[in-house]
Amino acid sequence: MSRPFRTRLLVRFGDIDAAGIAYYPQLVNFLHEAFEDFFTAHVGRPYPEVFRDGVGFPTKKVEMEFLSPARYGDWIDIDVSIEKLGRTSVIVHYEGSVAGRPVFRARNVAVVVDMKTFRPMPLPHELREKFETVLKG
Amino acid sequence: MSRPFRTRLLVRFGDIDAAGIAYYPQLVNFLHEAFEDFFTAHVGRPYPEVFRDGVGFPTKKVEMEFLSPARYGDWIDIDVSIEKLGRTSVIVHYEGSVAGRPVFRARNVAVVVDMKTFRPMPLPHELREKFETVLKG
Amino acid sequence: MSRPFRTRLLVRFGDIDAAGIAYYPQLVNFLHEAFEDFFTAHVGRPYPEVFRDGVGFPTKKVEMEFLSPARYGDWIDIDVSIEKLGRTSVIVHYEGSVAGRPVFRARNVAVVVDMKTFRPMPLPHELREKFETVLKG
Amino acid sequence: MSRPFRTRLLVRFGDIDAAGIAYYPQLVNFLHEAFEDFFTAHVGRPYPEVFRDGVGFPTKKVEMEFLSPARYGDWIDIDVSIEKLGRTSVIVHYEGSVAGRPVFRARNVAVVVDMKTFRPMPLPHELREKFETVLKG
Repeated sequence: MSRPFRTRLLVRFGDIDAAGIAYYPQLVNFLHEAFEDFFTAHVGRPYPEVFRDGVGFPTKKVEMEFLSPARYGDWIDIDVSIEKLGRTSVIVHYEGSVAGRPVFRARNVAVVVDMKTFRPMPLPHELREKFETVLKG
Repeated sequence: MSRPFRTRLLVRFGDIDAAGIAYYPQLVNFLHEAFEDFFTAHVGRPYPEVFRDGVGFPTKKVEMEFLSPARYGDWIDIDVSIEKLGRTSVIVHYEGSVAGRPVFRARNVAVVVDMKTFRPMPLPHELREKFETVLKG
Repeated sequence: MSRPFRTRLLVRFGDIDAAGIAYYPQLVNFLHEAFEDFFTAHVGRPYPEVFRDGVGFPTKKVEMEFLSPARYGDWIDIDVSIEKLGRTSVIVHYEGSVAGRPVFRARNVAVVVDMKTFRPMPLPHELREKFETVLKG
Repeated sequence: MSRPFRTRLLVRFGDIDAAGIAYYPQLVNFLHEAFEDFFTAHVGRPYPEVFRDGVGFPTKKVEMEFLSPARYGDWIDIDVSIEKLGRTSVIVHYEGSVAGRPVFRARNVAVVVDMKTFRPMPLPHELREKFETVLKG
């Protein structure tokens, strides 16, 4: 059985909104940061490196549910798993929680893109192998 | 027939990401800014005022599709309309375009909340009336 | 006598920090946005256009004083003037106020740079002429 | 001899600007994040906790020099030290570098403030002791 990759991100002073909780677009930003951490710590190649080699993952669609507020100083545990692995696309699933309390759930549909042409390309083999180890059951 | 409310937001120097296009979480931020403009220009009461009077609209869920990239200096026309008006919730629909070219489409499910108790409350009558004039057909 | 260029920027929901006031790095961002507005409305050529033509103004140094807090919903009037106009550099002066109450004062030392080589270049003549009309007395 | 406190922050995908380097107001944000890390790792009390106990450090003035660009994926080492420790104020000094290459130098003049009254208050004794161990020589 595969398990998700987990990273932790901190809600910072500037992440708070006028309601005194983490600003929700900033939590969308956390999805991208978690995806970057997934490359560095799980795939074994930092995303900046993959990206400079010409492979990008622009978002086609994002869906995100907010289950409870995150507050200043909260560490959000983010579980990253792969919901679907297409030939030139990937659906990434995220679950965020603070000390076990669910704060968000999200899915991001990304296209694998050749950064030189901005056109879809097949997910490179070595990335596919790593992505498969966190396939959502 | 009702028509959406339209506002325009500018893609700024700092809104760009490492791929050279508008960073997608920043476009999620644009949804909130468009919602604020909707209050000021259409509802007739700035959101900061409504908010200080104790009515908030925390996001329960957001869905957003990215149809084409927005670039530095683009003015994004954002059409705001109401997809569904519940008693204590509202679904807001957004369409973004640059010179007629669609760039995104989104829906945001928000709960109407009493900011003193953080509990759902009925949408105040005077807001409901204004929201109804941009109901999506 | 020359007069500064004035633009207005709105403190948004997401600009607030955990202390309930505009997050100060976000006010630094407002300096850049005011500089962009200065190009569009005063210089007569949007900065994105100038930038794509290969002229950039990377910041060498910024100094900013915070005189009073800006709050959610505040419109900040920002006066932009030129403190010093060198051959390949420019010092831009900013004063921010809310309904006449001073909120910040700043200066930004920028280098004029050829974006192809990232090396200093003389400020183009047509820009210099426009910059001179807002020279600080 | 005292030594600075060092933390590391990563330049993320969304931190990049239209020029392809870290957006300078985002590097100002890094100063605040480094200050937060300083509390957690050096002072021994996370800033959110100190803050909720009613002690804030609003910025009165910031000065920052940019010595070389930071790029996507760079880890910035940030040295935090105290330049001056007043009764109700503190000047914090920052030096940022990427693999030994200097990228910025900054000082931040902050007032120690009672968050209930928003008025200056003396720096609490237990914080002062910790601040003194990173006094700049």
